[in-house]
Amino acid sequence: MDPDAVAKAFVDYYYTTFDTNRAGLASVYQESSVLSFEGQKYQGTQSISGKLTGLPFQQCKHQINTVDCQPSGAAGGMLVFVSGNLSLPGEQHALKFSQMFHLIPTQGGSFYVQNDIFRLNYA
Amino acid sequence: MDPDAVAKAFVDYYYTTFDTNRAGLASVYQESSVLSFEGQKYQGTQSISGKLTGLPFQQCKHQINTVDCQPSGAAGGMLVFVSGNLSLPGEQHALKFSQMFHLIPTQGGSFYVQNDIFRLNYA
Repeated sequence: MDPDAVAKAFVDYYYTTFDTNRAGLASVYQESSVLSFEGQKYQGTQSISGKLTGLPFQQCKHQINTVDCQPSGAAGGMLVFVSGNLSLPGEQHALKFSQMFHLIPTQGGSFYVQNDIFRLNYA
Repeated sequence: MDPDAVAKAFVDYYYTTFDTNRAGLASVYQESSVLSFEGQKYQGTQSISGKLTGLPFQQCKHQINTVDCQPSGAAGGMLVFVSGNLSLPGEQHALKFSQMFHLIPTQGGSFYVQNDIFRLNYA
């Protein structure tokens, strides 16, 4: 399996789901997962999903600029590093962001997100 | 050992060394290490150090804005996510960058960089 193809498929799925059905993101996390969102930490599916669905905007649109991928050294794990723009309703200018994911294989042949770190890149 | 303190100490060491003695960065990598620098991949100490010392500027100054840290799930590993500004000689405006490191413990009680992904955040 080509790691770059897996990374691209994950990134496409993640941000499409974020922009169209944010509650559906819960399925990519597990109880051990950790999200750092603008410096605040959330652990576990419920806590992470609660943070993401509770963000103070209903509509958004992610545009991906770069995706980098490397094997993480953990068994079958992959690090995915994303940069892009986030457009919010009523905002004239898109916000730049960077985000990294650590993907770990599941027994079912898929991946879950063990680590997720998100930062806006303020100008 | 407080992971956030380890991450901060690593970040301080890494960017101080980058800005004052770039060749000294070779010691934080090992043969299995991978660097993705603006989308180009380099593996191993010599290849990575060659890329960093060969960058087309002699002086630079990193200013760190944020540091996020999470355990990676690998044995004792840590993910460190950095955002900041990079000032180059002759450039009026600093360049924004994001960078992530996956640190793995060494037998000697220190850490080495298994994964390093660097991206400039173009405006």
